[in-house]
Formats: sequence, C-alpha cells, structure tokens
Amino acid sequence: MIEFIELISSMDARKKFFDVYSPELKTEIIETRNSLGRVTASTILAPHSLPNFPRSTVDGYSLQASDSYGASESLPVYLKMVGEVSMGAEPDFTVKPNQCAMIHTGGMLPKGTNAVVMVENTQKSQQDEIEVMRPVATGENIVEVGEDIKFGEELIPAGKQIRESDIGGLMAMGITTLSVNQIPKVGIISTGDEIISPENELSLGQVRDINSYSLSAIVSRYGGIPQVYGIIPDEEETLHKIAQKALSECEMVLITAGSSVSYRDITSLVINKLGKPGVLVHGVNIRPGKPTILSVCKGKPVIGLPGNPVSALVIAKLFVVPIMERLLGITYKNPTATITAELSVNLSSQSGREDWIPVRIVTNKQSKYKAEPVFGKSNLIFTLVKSDGLVRISPEDTGISAGEHVEVILL
Amino acid sequence: MIEFIELISSMDARKKFFDVYSPELKTEIIETRNSLGRVTASTILAPHSLPNFPRSTVDGYSLQASDSYGASESLPVYLKMVGEVSMGAEPDFTVKPNQCAMIHTGGMLPKGTNAVVMVENTQKSQQDEIEVMRPVATGENIVEVGEDIKFGEELIPAGKQIRESDIGGLMAMGITTLSVNQIPKVGIISTGDEIISPENELSLGQVRDINSYSLSAIVSRYGGIPQVYGIIPDEEETLHKIAQKALSECEMVLITAGSSVSYRDITSLVINKLGKPGVLVHGVNIRPGKPTILSVCKGKPVIGLPGNPVSALVIAKLFVVPIMERLLGITYKNPTATITAELSVNLSSQSGREDWIPVRIVTNKQSKYKAEPVFGKSNLIFTLVKSDGLVRISPEDTGISAGEHVEVILL
Repeated sequence: MIEFIELISSMDARKKFFDVYSPELKTEIIETRNSLGRVTASTILAPHSLPNFPRSTVDGYSLQASDSYGASESLPVYLKMVGEVSMGAEPDFTVKPNQCAMIHTGGMLPKGTNAVVMVENTQKSQQDEIEVMRPVATGENIVEVGEDIKFGEELIPAGKQIRESDIGGLMAMGITTLSVNQIPKVGIISTGDEIISPENELSLGQVRDINSYSLSAIVSRYGGIPQVYGIIPDEEETLHKIAQKALSECEMVLITAGSSVSYRDITSLVINKLGKPGVLVHGVNIRPGKPTILSVCKGKPVIGLPGNPVSALVIAKLFVVPIMERLLGITYKNPTATITAELSVNLSSQSGREDWIPVRIVTNKQSKYKAEPVFGKSNLIFTLVKSDGLVRISPEDTGISAGEHVEVILL
Repeated sequence: MIEFIELISSMDARKKFFDVYSPELKTEIIETRNSLGRVTASTILAPHSLPNFPRSTVDGYSLQASDSYGASESLPVYLKMVGEVSMGAEPDFTVKPNQCAMIHTGGMLPKGTNAVVMVENTQKSQQDEIEVMRPVATGENIVEVGEDIKFGEELIPAGKQIRESDIGGLMAMGITTLSVNQIPKVGIISTGDEIISPENELSLGQVRDINSYSLSAIVSRYGGIPQVYGIIPDEEETLHKIAQKALSECEMVLITAGSSVSYRDITSLVINKLGKPGVLVHGVNIRPGKPTILSVCKGKPVIGLPGNPVSALVIAKLFVVPIMERLLGITYKNPTATITAELSVNLSSQSGREDWIPVRIVTNKQSKYKAEPVFGKSNLIFTLVKSDGLVRISPEDTGISAGEHVEVILL
C-alpha cells in the first residue's frame, strides 16, 4: 500500500518538474497557409515595408493638401482633374499644383500629391474639374509607406502559436513558407486488469477504456499527435516493455493506472526503470488527481495519471498541457480565456488542498452567468460530461461562498 | 458611389439574416475516437447503466456495513477474510455475516457486501482475519450500479460539439461510432484588381492577398472546410461566374471586396443575381466592418466582407462564425470564454456605432491583466497581428474609461 506521505502543491510540482526538464526542439518548414496553431521556430522580421507605396484609404481625389486650405462649402477650391488612378498599378502621370486625380480605396497616390479628399466632400463642376468643399491635412486619408510595418521590424516573435491574423500578416509580406517546431508525439498507455477495449461487451467487474481516448483528444486539441499503446494488464514486465517502446518512439509518455491508488504501485517502479532521473513528484495535494506522478526519463517526460477518468482529464489540463506547450516550443503565451460566473452554492474545501470542481454554466434572467456545481463522486465520467468547465479552489482557501464570482475554465 | 443610408446594428443584422436562413443539415457516421469538435446529429441515450456492477472506490475490505457498527480503535470488530476480489472479474464467492473480502479500487463488490472499509482503517490480526477500527455506512466507498449514468438517461444532447470528456463518456458506454453533422464547405473569393497572390513579387500599387488565407484559417478553426476560389478582378461577369460555381459547390460563400467601399458595388450586384432572396443587409453600424453584406441565395448564405483584412477578420468573427455554428448544427453552445482586463486608457466611440478595438494583454505587477489598445488605422493588418484580442464598445456607449474592466475576446 502506497501512502502519499509528502503531498506537494501543484505549483511546487510543476516547478520541481520544469527545474529538470527542458526539451530540445526540432524544426521543419511548412506552408504558411497550413500553419494555424503551429509554433514559430524563430523570430520573423519584415522583409520590406508595408505598404510599399502611399495608398488611399477612401474613394476621392488625390491632391496636394495645401491646395485645399481654406476650402468650404460656400467658398470651394476648384481643381483640375488630370487623370484616374488604376487599381493595382503605379500612376503614369504627375499631379501639379491646383490639379487632382480621381482615386479609389487602395489606390496608389500619384506623384505630386500627399492627401486625399473624400468624394463626399467634393462636387463635380465640369467634366475635368471638381470643387473641394473641405480642407484636408497632409497625409489625410492615406496610409504612408511603412505605416503598417517597417522593413526589419519584428513581424512575429519566436515561440508564438500562429493565429488567423498572423497568417494574414505573413501572407501580406509574401512569406509563404515558415519554420515551425515539429509536432510532438505523445504515447498513451492505459493499465489495469479490469480495463477492456470499448468495442468489447462488458462482463461484470470490467470497465471500458476511457483514458486512451480522452487523453488522445486532449493531446490532439493542444497540438500534439497521440499514439495509443493499448491496454496493459497490471504486470510489471509487460508494462516496462511497452513503456520502453513508447519512450523511444514519442517525445512524452502518459501512463494511466487502472486503479487510482494501486496496492502495488507498478507505474512508479516501471518509470524508475525507464531512465534517470525518474520519478520527481509522486502525489500532489489536489482533488481530483492526488496520485499523479511527474518524471523525466532520458530527457523525456513520463507522466503517471490517475486511472480515474475524471482525475486523468483534470491532471492532463494541469500538467500535461503545460508540458506539451514546452514541447511545442510555445514561449509567447496568451493568458487562458475563462468565463466569469456567479457561484450558485457554497463550496467547501480542505485548507492546503487545491480542488477543481466541475460546474455547469447557466444564464440567469439578467443574462449573467451562473456556475452550478455538478456534484458526484470524483470518478464519475458523466459529472464531467454534464459540466461546461472547472472552478479552482486554491490551497489557501477553505471554500468559496455562494454569490462570489469565480473563473470557469472551459472543458 | 454607394452610400450606406440605412446602417443597422450588428444585432439587428444577425436577426434579419437568421429570420430568413436556416440550413438543412446532412449527417454522417464517424468513429467516436475521431469526433473531437464534431457536432452530434441526435441525442444519445445511455444503452446501459454505468457502472453495471457495484464498484469499490478505495483499496480495502468489502463487508456488510452493519458488521462494522460500533467499531473503534480501542474496540475493533474482527472479520474473517474469505477471499480477494480479482480485478476485472465477478467474484466467485459470497461473503457471509462477520466475514469480509479484500478488494482494490475499481473491484466488484462480492455478493453479501454493501460497503468497503479503507485499508487505512483496518489492521491484519491473523492471516485470514482483520480488525476493523472504524464503522462504515451502507454504500460507503462504493459506486452503486447506475450511479454514473442510468440506462436510458441522456448521455449527450443533439447539437453539441464533442469535447474530450464527451469522447470519454461515449467510450465508457461502448459507443464507438457516432452520427454527426457533416462538415460544411465554405467558398472564399477575393476580389480586387490590385490584389496579387502572395507568391508573387509586388509591383507598386499592388497588395498581396491576405483574406483568402486568414478567412481559410478562421473557417478551419471553427470546424469548416475552406475552399479557395482565387483572386477575381473587379469585373462583374467574371465574379458572377466564379460565385455561381462556389455557391453550387459549397454550403456558404464569402466574397471579400478589393476595396472597402468600391465606387461600383459589384459584389452586391452579383449576389442579387445569384438567387433569391439575395441581399438582406448591406451596411452595418460597426467599426471596422461597415460595408458588410449579409445575403441568402438559393438557401445558402453569401457574405460580402470588406476587403480591408482587419475588417474582414472582425466581421468573420461576428457574422461568419455564428452562421458556421448554424451550418455545423451547434444548438448547445457554451458561452465564449474571454479575458477580463483593466483598460489602460480612455477609449471613445460614436454613439450608435459598435466599435471593436484591438488590444494587447499585459500582466501588471499585481498579476492582473491590463488591456492596452493597439492603435493604428483600421486597415493595418499588423495592428491585429500585434494584438491579443478585441474589446467591444457597444452602440449605447460613447466610450470606456481607463481603469474600467473590459472583456477581451481572444483573436
């Protein structure tokens, strides 16, 4: 019987782990158009200024700003129109004082002009003449060369997960391929004599494998490739062999135990045999998820997750996801988006222990969010299925009162 | 010159659109293990109770609870141990009064028992005898038949986007295939004489296509398949032909105009020729994104997005994503997770207009989030690239003051 004599906080557990672990990242070149969610391997600088020509932001007339000074509706300025700017081309004419050219949004300013008056503020007086009824300042209604970004400026920092707008920015600069970190493979092993594959009929005493699939999904969602190694009986030799194979083929290995606290703690024994330094953390003061194991073997993370599928998912969010972010090379990280909601009932917790409570989000009559705890034993998968997210009670607190605002991390 | 005489609010625009539009969904059967993010086509009910046997949640001894009543450390109850429950099997023995059986977490309770005493609260007195030092109540430390979910109960509602825990729940019930709504194809057309493909060298007056790629990425991220139809010159006939093709091949079509407000509004002309009812909304009182067109042609949404890449992305979030959710059949929707941050400076806005301001999230010394607006003309893609999210100023407000808390929707 394993006793968790020394339970440490989740923050200390992560620290202990990351003091030892730092991955070597491999990179590859991919097409920018397919880079959503991938992580930049290096800082990308602007290869040229954008725009590379002065561009109109409105439909109107390009002119020398000083020519419009003093213009008003009662006393308009008359300008001769000497041409129309074609879209996508450099104007082949020059605008002289007291002249102007018709221009459309996105058009290039002809030589001799430094502003655009909006068509709404003009009137055609003759075929080739307009009345300007409002003065414009130098630079008005145009985007200057380099105003979006200047040659050599940082476009995207290294270690950033590419978003839609980043793809847009890269394409705007003609950067159609990109050096990104490789996608890590994560090996997943389920253990337990009572676990069977979901395709099979249940006999009494058996339960179907949940963790191989929910952990695969979490690995996929956060940008890794899951590699499932099947269900291994509670047998040290077999588990060791499979774990060795997984460790050689993957960048991280997850082992979920069939029993949350097994009478024989095979997982930690096997992990310690896989390589140095082995188990770093065994037991975290958190509920659900106490029997978590964090270890590094031959430079790779091997994480022992509770067999209980609810704990396994919570622990995956708390420990596996941050390790995956390291494996992905994410160094420029957005804060986690949450939902702020009013807690519907009192929640109590043991001081010193971190609790994660599944909640359902409901919208009340004032369209404010309420968080309603979904109660149930911590090993019931359907408490999570019925929940929208998780609320944390920190180790310093002994609970949260009804009516308090909590942050809900979506599942 | 198009004038937006009648600008409507984004809420009214959505209402006007969804009053007319409702898609017919096609379904398909897929493997549950690959269903992350897919949307259930129908409600799924529990095919059996879970667990289907009474299960221990701890390591200890299975017993008749009444046998332990009155037990204490000074006056323990002695029970004869008649067997050990094997994991994954139905115990082949029965426990009589004043007897017990060794059991492990997840093990099936033998007949004759209705509770489990934790091993920590027992002591071995002889090879086949234990001392129970604490009483247990009926049902203590066990999960009853159907306690996770009961036969016939709703497992997952129709119209829900599958998450990790849902996959876990389905696998636990042996549901290895799933009926889901088909993934919608979204056609994307960029228009504009000045737009060139990102692979090409820029001549003066030209800009590279951004929208085909950033919109493809947003379609992918929200669960659709983007289909890019290339860059079409500002020419009605050509655009009409391509738009017709896209409409016949896709479930939704996005057309981004080269110019945000073109002197000839080709897009709306073409849309009205594609089919009835045609353009429903033209011009929304929002910045950026005023020249947005919402239409339905032959039962399919055709959305005209501003050519300005920043507007196109904002409008895609506000209008295209909700339409995609309808196309995906999402009816059970989580609220959007956000980041609550303190605004760093005053922001002003025109009353009656909805503004979306790009902001960067920074963490201050008290580890609180601050939202710092990233200023720049609304058509500069790098204002978005440098931003973490968007802050909304509602049409009722004329601004937000520095120090107020705002919700930031991540980009």
